[in-house]
Amino acid sequence: MHPNTGPPPLNSTIELLTTYNELNLPTADILSEEPSPLEYMRYVARNRPFVVRRGAADWTATKTWNVSTLKELLMRQSVNVAVTPKGNADAPAEDEDGELLFVKPWEEQQLFEEFVDFVSQQQLRGEKEIKEVSPENDNLRNEYSTLFSHVEKDIPWARIALQQSPEAINLWIGNSYSTTALHKDNYENIYVQIIGQKRFVLLPPSAHAAVNEKQLLPASYVRRDDGGFEMRREEGERIPFATWDPDSSAGATQYSQYARPLDVTLEEGDMLYLPALWYDMDFGGSFYPLCNFARSTHLSQPTS
Amino acid sequence: MHPNTGPPPLNSTIELLTTYNELNLPTADILSEEPSPLEYMRYVARNRPFVVRRGAADWTATKTWNVSTLKELLMRQSVNVAVTPKGNADAPAEDEDGELLFVKPWEEQQLFEEFVDFVSQQQLRGEKEIKEVSPENDNLRNEYSTLFSHVEKDIPWARIALQQSPEAINLWIGNSYSTTALHKDNYENIYVQIIGQKRFVLLPPSAHAAVNEKQLLPASYVRRDDGGFEMRREEGERIPFATWDPDSSAGATQYSQYARPLDVTLEEGDMLYLPALWYDMDFGGSFYPLCNFARSTHLSQPTS
Repeated sequence: MHPNTGPPPLNSTIELLTTYNELNLPTADILSEEPSPLEYMRYVARNRPFVVRRGAADWTATKTWNVSTLKELLMRQSVNVAVTPKGNADAPAEDEDGELLFVKPWEEQQLFEEFVDFVSQQQLRGEKEIKEVSPENDNLRNEYSTLFSHVEKDIPWARIALQQSPEAINLWIGNSYSTTALHKDNYENIYVQIIGQKRFVLLPPSAHAAVNEKQLLPASYVRRDDGGFEMRREEGERIPFATWDPDSSAGATQYSQYARPLDVTLEEGDMLYLPALWYDMDFGGSFYPLCNFARSTHLSQPTS
Repeated sequence: MHPNTGPPPLNSTIELLTTYNELNLPTADILSEEPSPLEYMRYVARNRPFVVRRGAADWTATKTWNVSTLKELLMRQSVNVAVTPKGNADAPAEDEDGELLFVKPWEEQQLFEEFVDFVSQQQLRGEKEIKEVSPENDNLRNEYSTLFSHVEKDIPWARIALQQSPEAINLWIGNSYSTTALHKDNYENIYVQIIGQKRFVLLPPSAHAAVNEKQLLPASYVRRDDGGFEMRREEGERIPFATWDPDSSAGATQYSQYARPLDVTLEEGDMLYLPALWYDMDFGGSFYPLCNFARSTHLSQPTS
């Protein structure tokens, strides 16, 4: 007999994780064309991701962007670049004493052509330090507004279904040395792959017990005079953040073995719907520079 | 700092309950016309109930059913009637030793005209024993198929949105002495009030900790030779069932005070969408016999 008050027994968490696996496919649905607003809303209601293969194949960005056209479009423009020693921006990392901190990247301004040359050439010559343009602050309608006319100004099926225009439209540029740590957002997200490929490892909100969320002290990478980096603690509240790496299994809890991550790889022109409150971990693809267009549309969080 | 494995601390349950109240209105939305499939799907996605006032006002059933027309339509038909001493079919009740059991009603066959006379006249002369026709076994397409042409054969906006025809269409007939104990279903439900009124007390799935679910031994009412009832235990597994009464506050847990039930009253021709996994407790309305048409459309359970 279950206790009727207080926290649930331990094995109810295992049951939640395994029942989810039994009731849901181990893959994201793959659509061959964009959904209608109603079809999309069914995925929102079921809180399940899907991929639209080649859904953005006709976008000007998909058809025309490459290192050389981007350099031409953004020549002499100074852009904000996130720099980290190992490609781990906004991620948990241990300090010298072995304490896990939530570490933000070092940010510096750089001319776009220098940045994009660094990112694309590094792909060939190997790791040194990792630079990327981060998807923050609605950057495609601000810092990169020159490029905004090359993408659709919203995703009609999502706008109609959610009755909201995109809250933020972000451009991300990086290479295969960049990873995004396992994290979640309160927003409905649609990712559009413009150049190259990107791999996502996805976990539903029900897998919370598997991700080993910890309250981490905030820190940042700071560039030293010798060009290297050090980690510096910052003032501020602890940040709740997942510390499990589903790929290496580092940071696993007793429950992680029961979670079954979805593995999704986007190719050029593909779209991914990532539902609010899902966990995602992203990996840059191989061999060539990546541009990734992440479109975020805010929808009220599911609350029940 | 939160622990990062094991069950959540006690107060996370209070936080869940109070956050839900902060993010959601304390009432169900009231629509003045039927929603489109997309509008309906938004409610499914948000897992929120709504009422369509007079949505079924044009149905033949709403326009023509009363005690006399129903008797004419079903004259001499033998129907299955659920009988209980206090109007509490399929509900927790204490046996002589004070143990709470899950008690099913006594069922007997009766001519429809006798049943409906009993139900309608009892409304005037007071309680004796409580009889009702229960919404089970898709009864409007089986036992009461004579009446089926008087209602719409499905609800188009729900059928289109959920891509499923109704799994079961049920008729319920009772009076103000009948109550339905707080319970939940795995199905998306649409209730249509044909005659009289009915009051619902509704709780979202997130209020689970408030409903005091217990594992109850099964039992049934059995009619004795003297016409009265006794409770008889049955073989079978314990049944998980809510034991909180949000109206009287009997059976409250330490969390019940934080739950804020929605109170909805349906009048003739009104529809109520009750999302899957919500808890509902129903009360017959006053003064006149009630017919209540409950339409259940199966949709895969939300699993995350």
